[in-house]
Amino acid sequence: MSSQAPHPALLIPGPIEFDDEVLQSMSHYSESHVGAPFVNTFGEVLGMLRKLFITEDPKSQPFVISGSGTLGWDQVAANLVEPGDDVLVLHTGYFADSFADCFETYGIKPTQLKAPIGDRPQQDEVEKALKEKNYKLISITHTDTSTGVLSEIKGIADLVHRVSPDTLVIVDGVCSVGCEEIRFDDWKLDCVITASQKAIGCPAGLSIVMASGRAIERFKARKTPPGSYFGSWKNWLPIMQNYEAKKPSYFATPPPQLIHALHTSLTQILSKPLEERFKIHHETSQKVKKAIADLGLKQLASKPENQANGMTAIYLPEGMTPPAILPTLMKKGVIFAGGLHKEIATKYVRFGHMGVSVTDPKRDDIDRALKALGEGLKEVGYEAPNGKA
Amino acid sequence: MSSQAPHPALLIPGPIEFDDEVLQSMSHYSESHVGAPFVNTFGEVLGMLRKLFITEDPKSQPFVISGSGTLGWDQVAANLVEPGDDVLVLHTGYFADSFADCFETYGIKPTQLKAPIGDRPQQDEVEKALKEKNYKLISITHTDTSTGVLSEIKGIADLVHRVSPDTLVIVDGVCSVGCEEIRFDDWKLDCVITASQKAIGCPAGLSIVMASGRAIERFKARKTPPGSYFGSWKNWLPIMQNYEAKKPSYFATPPPQLIHALHTSLTQILSKPLEERFKIHHETSQKVKKAIADLGLKQLASKPENQANGMTAIYLPEGMTPPAILPTLMKKGVIFAGGLHKEIATKYVRFGHMGVSVTDPKRDDIDRALKALGEGLKEVGYEAPNGKA
Repeated sequence: MSSQAPHPALLIPGPIEFDDEVLQSMSHYSESHVGAPFVNTFGEVLGMLRKLFITEDPKSQPFVISGSGTLGWDQVAANLVEPGDDVLVLHTGYFADSFADCFETYGIKPTQLKAPIGDRPQQDEVEKALKEKNYKLISITHTDTSTGVLSEIKGIADLVHRVSPDTLVIVDGVCSVGCEEIRFDDWKLDCVITASQKAIGCPAGLSIVMASGRAIERFKARKTPPGSYFGSWKNWLPIMQNYEAKKPSYFATPPPQLIHALHTSLTQILSKPLEERFKIHHETSQKVKKAIADLGLKQLASKPENQANGMTAIYLPEGMTPPAILPTLMKKGVIFAGGLHKEIATKYVRFGHMGVSVTDPKRDDIDRALKALGEGLKEVGYEAPNGKA
Repeated sequence: MSSQAPHPALLIPGPIEFDDEVLQSMSHYSESHVGAPFVNTFGEVLGMLRKLFITEDPKSQPFVISGSGTLGWDQVAANLVEPGDDVLVLHTGYFADSFADCFETYGIKPTQLKAPIGDRPQQDEVEKALKEKNYKLISITHTDTSTGVLSEIKGIADLVHRVSPDTLVIVDGVCSVGCEEIRFDDWKLDCVITASQKAIGCPAGLSIVMASGRAIERFKARKTPPGSYFGSWKNWLPIMQNYEAKKPSYFATPPPQLIHALHTSLTQILSKPLEERFKIHHETSQKVKKAIADLGLKQLASKPENQANGMTAIYLPEGMTPPAILPTLMKKGVIFAGGLHKEIATKYVRFGHMGVSVTDPKRDDIDRALKALGEGLKEVGYEAPNGKA
């Protein structure tokens, strides 16, 4: 039986439901951030992140810093490029606009390559764009949380390496690390940024980054100092290397309780092959998407290959808005999120299916959610085709 | 009986020991960051912070952002001043050097006014400095965690208002908010930055800031955009105002579990008059300082008026280094910190006396620490005068 107080199942695209043991780790008694027990825990976390990102190259460098996933953007913009540099931002939703804003804050010149809502830039468009300017990096949102659109990271990375080999490949994996396949070494990625509260299954408050040896070299070769202080790798790189070597070190106080929770979560994730984790997220996603289609509803991500495995963005029936259905779902013990993409925010809802809600056989969150959605839509007046709802 | 596993008392100058109920709040089940229950909790936290900082001016603006206390420096440097501006940094230890580095990162020109180790810049020196340049702001470390030196905030603030009234008064209160008297309105402060894990008694992971109406006006009158994205008040100001008005709003995901823990901690702190809290910290500090003197030991902060109430930096006996005594204290169930001020780091230790270790009558952390220190010094060969140790 769960140690958590009864509560509706949180099935938004992050924060997700957390495992009991992970939440209990959040209550860890206070420890010195430079004492041996905590240094050891933090060091192990950094080592486990290498496994999560599937990187064995010792030059790869993990960072875990107090902050939200957004701080990862600042880290990229302030450390990996310099004022005046051009960067190419592939746009699959809200988060590319924000990442572009972040680049501009640091004097970087972003060029956005956009696709219609629900779609993603195509290989030939990306190839053409890459040939037009000397882009220092390209950023790709793996799963855009506002649209549920999945990018094809390996294909884009291969293209970049072929067409513009000096361009660093940056992945915004906030809504993908832990549920979508990411092979950091094999795909020759340069930086993947993520956060704790989505498919990694640890409460919010950690900015998690994996950088390649090439990215670190690029950072070290900067002509100008990093544009951020709190997010500066000049400040954090020695700290992370020391923690991983189990040596105490100080720049700014890390959050011990969150690091303990991340340790617990990563230990659970890595206790099984990652392939199984990707597979069960894919299968669950397919089940959700089939149920949505059976209800006669459409997804924002219209093509199967564009559809994320950790969430589904669902168009509501014509004329229905999120406030008409979300409270009904809440009464049935299920929390979905409203729309986020500003042009169509009132037309859709978002269903997150990541982490323990998907992987823990003792939980029935997903089935309950699908049942609640069908019943709820019917209660607010929607008639599904073939009487499925 | 405590719900925490047995562990040595953490008596470093932060993170401190946490209350059971605060730690239990860290295990709160997952909630949507834009759902009514969490929005309500966050809104209450912002309201309680006004009380903690003793500000009733509705123009004062609290911020609580995922990050460490250091992020507060970035917020000041990136939002309240613009590239090329001069700022005056009063130096009482390590943290002024770091704050100056942070200013430089954002193109600000810091002038440091230094004092000998253990002392603080004097009023006449500050007055002279203020008259030399047009400083857009002055920063004062309330308690420098590296030296235990306390600054006299009211006196400096009064001086600034008299001599250089357009200069914003910024207080680094990371090691003081919650244990030292701070009267935000009465002293006409413009910005106090702090963190959760010291005298506020909530685990690390939150950057907490209070800004005055004047500071917000200065921010809004900027000619250049803020120099940080994650730390930009342009991004956070509407979010904080919405949360406090109990309206959902999104820029970057806040950390719900930490916000719950902060809610619990602030509720506990505000259940009694703040004057009592300042008084018991002062009395406990006096007891510690007397015991240190009785042991024949000196503090880094040599003058009584320079001595912080939340910590004591203690010179070890001639020739003794921290590794000679800290493990002995650990065996006796007490954790102190080593030195941090680089010129003398091997010559002293730091004893934090903040929060529940001071205020909770069921705890005997401070007495145990003093006993352990006396016995421990004796065990490693130190003979106190008059046989006190």
